[in-house]
Amino acid sequence: MTDLVVYDIAELAVGPGTDEPMETIENAAVAVEDGTVVSVGDTDDVTEEHPPSAADAAYDAAGRAVLPGFVDPHTHALFAGDRSDEFEAKLRGKSYQEILAQGGGILRTVDAVRTADEDTLLANLLSQLDVMLEHGTTTVEVKSGYGLDTGTELRMLRAIDRADDQHPVDVVPTFMGAHAVPQGMDTDDYVDEVVEEQLPAVAEQGIATFCDVFCEEDVFSVAQSRRVLETGMAHGLTPKVHAEELAHIGGTQLAAEVGATSADHLLHSTEADVDALVDAGVVPVLLPGTAFGLGAEYADAGMMLDRDAPVAIATDFNPNCHSHSMGFAQSLACVGMGMTPAEALLASTHNAAEALDLPARHGTLREGAPADLVVLDAPSFVHVPYQYGVNVVETVWKDGDRVHG
Amino acid sequence: MTDLVVYDIAELAVGPGTDEPMETIENAAVAVEDGTVVSVGDTDDVTEEHPPSAADAAYDAAGRAVLPGFVDPHTHALFAGDRSDEFEAKLRGKSYQEILAQGGGILRTVDAVRTADEDTLLANLLSQLDVMLEHGTTTVEVKSGYGLDTGTELRMLRAIDRADDQHPVDVVPTFMGAHAVPQGMDTDDYVDEVVEEQLPAVAEQGIATFCDVFCEEDVFSVAQSRRVLETGMAHGLTPKVHAEELAHIGGTQLAAEVGATSADHLLHSTEADVDALVDAGVVPVLLPGTAFGLGAEYADAGMMLDRDAPVAIATDFNPNCHSHSMGFAQSLACVGMGMTPAEALLASTHNAAEALDLPARHGTLREGAPADLVVLDAPSFVHVPYQYGVNVVETVWKDGDRVHG
Ligand SMILES: [Zn+2]
Ligand SMILES: [Zn+2]
Repeated sequence: MTDLVVYDIAELAVGPGTDEPMETIENAAVAVEDGTVVSVGDTDDVTEEHPPSAADAAYDAAGRAVLPGFVDPHTHALFAGDRSDEFEAKLRGKSYQEILAQGGGILRTVDAVRTADEDTLLANLLSQLDVMLEHGTTTVEVKSGYGLDTGTELRMLRAIDRADDQHPVDVVPTFMGAHAVPQGMDTDDYVDEVVEEQLPAVAEQGIATFCDVFCEEDVFSVAQSRRVLETGMAHGLTPKVHAEELAHIGGTQLAAEVGATSADHLLHSTEADVDALVDAGVVPVLLPGTAFGLGAEYADAGMMLDRDAPVAIATDFNPNCHSHSMGFAQSLACVGMGMTPAEALLASTHNAAEALDLPARHGTLREGAPADLVVLDAPSFVHVPYQYGVNVVETVWKDGDRVHG
Repeated sequence: MTDLVVYDIAELAVGPGTDEPMETIENAAVAVEDGTVVSVGDTDDVTEEHPPSAADAAYDAAGRAVLPGFVDPHTHALFAGDRSDEFEAKLRGKSYQEILAQGGGILRTVDAVRTADEDTLLANLLSQLDVMLEHGTTTVEVKSGYGLDTGTELRMLRAIDRADDQHPVDVVPTFMGAHAVPQGMDTDDYVDEVVEEQLPAVAEQGIATFCDVFCEEDVFSVAQSRRVLETGMAHGLTPKVHAEELAHIGGTQLAAEVGATSADHLLHSTEADVDALVDAGVVPVLLPGTAFGLGAEYADAGMMLDRDAPVAIATDFNPNCHSHSMGFAQSLACVGMGMTPAEALLASTHNAAEALDLPARHGTLREGAPADLVVLDAPSFVHVPYQYGVNVVETVWKDGDRVHG
């Protein structure tokens, strides 16, 4: 029994092609059974075997494009409080250091999260996931890291786990106790706490997939980062690295050496760094919204693509980069980083799924892929980046269930 | 009889303050009669005179901000065809000149508009206005200028007029026959046609408010632009000028000399230019989306604000800058041009209304203003620019009627 047929699709983005970033089919259809894509191709071929009239649900996508649901592989989407006033303060010329000195910045979010109970954290995350889903995201990674103590980090991870259970969007949990150093604490002492107390407790709770660290000048050194990641690996957590965002200190090479799933930011990565990532099978995850907000140079996506790196992009959604939209990330990837719309879509789907170690067909609409489908109110996936600041997502299915539109 | 009371507003943006760009009231309410704001202030004060229970409609805006509807004072929102493939071609390194040489660019839109009938043009514009309204825009200027012949320019203006009649969004019509020179035509000959044939026909039809011209190197010179604008004025059309977008040729001074309502783009305007605008009462309209898409420098908003210019911003929505969102324009005004959120909101409401010669209280929520209200799914107007690429508009009233959300 066919559960869903979407047919007469003006342009179907299937997944990476043999010699093009994104293979497309015109006048296409997709058939779904048990939450999985079972047939993809020309409308005539697919509907002969799976007639819309005989399916549980059918959808005429005439004139519109259909894409795989977006995978957002790097967010800090679980937080509490409101830091929009800092956005204003920065525009009035305050530096991030001044904002931090006045009790703002990340440590303000830490205070707000520490005082929020688990149900509040859950409600906050669920409402963010609603907005992400409206923007076409069907899988998202969410990091802890606003607790910076064992109890709060565990509470964040429990809220993330419950959100994954309750919300149609799939949530991939990452432990990031090493996101910042708590106020007044020595960094080495805090790394001791992360390694000796937080990581064992997280592993015992058993609900984090990845372990991430902010490897950055004046935050966690390469040696400290390596200690966190290797301890995480010993506890069964797969490494990820925030690398070379503000300075070049060796985080990319560390990611390659420990065999991280992804290395993220990479604003200051060199060609040799990128070659090391490619050799080690590490996915580079670029965060153009963060660079946009900082007025910084963007990461050098062109250099990475030239070196055959499987570039992914993410929103980096957090109080300092308040954007839920992978479509906007694609606009920035194109306008700011010179990627083509096809490269930006690949980076938002298949490559982003690889940045989360998802099974092979995730982030595509090939047979066997999860039926995570996005219909656009537009005839081509090019409209996603082309329509600046506008959400062109019309309808979303997650595992074959219609969950938006 | 009170038609509408919106109460318990977390933050109400009222309009320009005496020594701040935007005056706000916390825990505020607005009462509306006959499509007009009749009372604004603290919830207790307003609801004592206008109890929600006795009003035709009442809305509890607890936790949310309310703003004046956005006024978008510069768009080319009426067009036909799809030029998203040029967005892709530009990212692959094609220059605008190459795209033009291959039949792309503005003249491709002209071809598509010339072959579209009036009902098609109307339907296109109505669907764009739907998206604009969802993004909080309640008044928009729309230019002709994709006809470049008398018949098509008149047809565009009729479609604009009908859209204004049929759609809740107020549409202000601008004649812009001098938008480009038709293929193969001498510029002076075309200016003759605009002045001798198009303008008299437009004036006779009586449905354009403004006359605009693309005063630019290799397009219309200052002398040619002056001739178009002065002829327009003789026919009762108020001048506007596209000035100094790509080069500095004197369009800003021309705008001041003819007493234009606005001068738009201004990427290359000097301090003296801006002083001339201020002295002549001309509103500078900045179009950050266009600069964003081109990867160009933004206009120098800070310099203009320092000189007390009443800076307005607009989307410049057109096939080459496909953004309906005044919220995104505000993000770019802040992040790209260094304006504060309050300055960006003022530029999108009160100052934008001045760029369209609207009556005094338009673009505010003071007593006597039209009841064009936007409720945000956020506690402060700062969230409009702060949430990059995300539309935070929840509910919209136009002239007191609930038209979205
Ligand atoms: Zn991050
Ligand atoms: Zn224009």
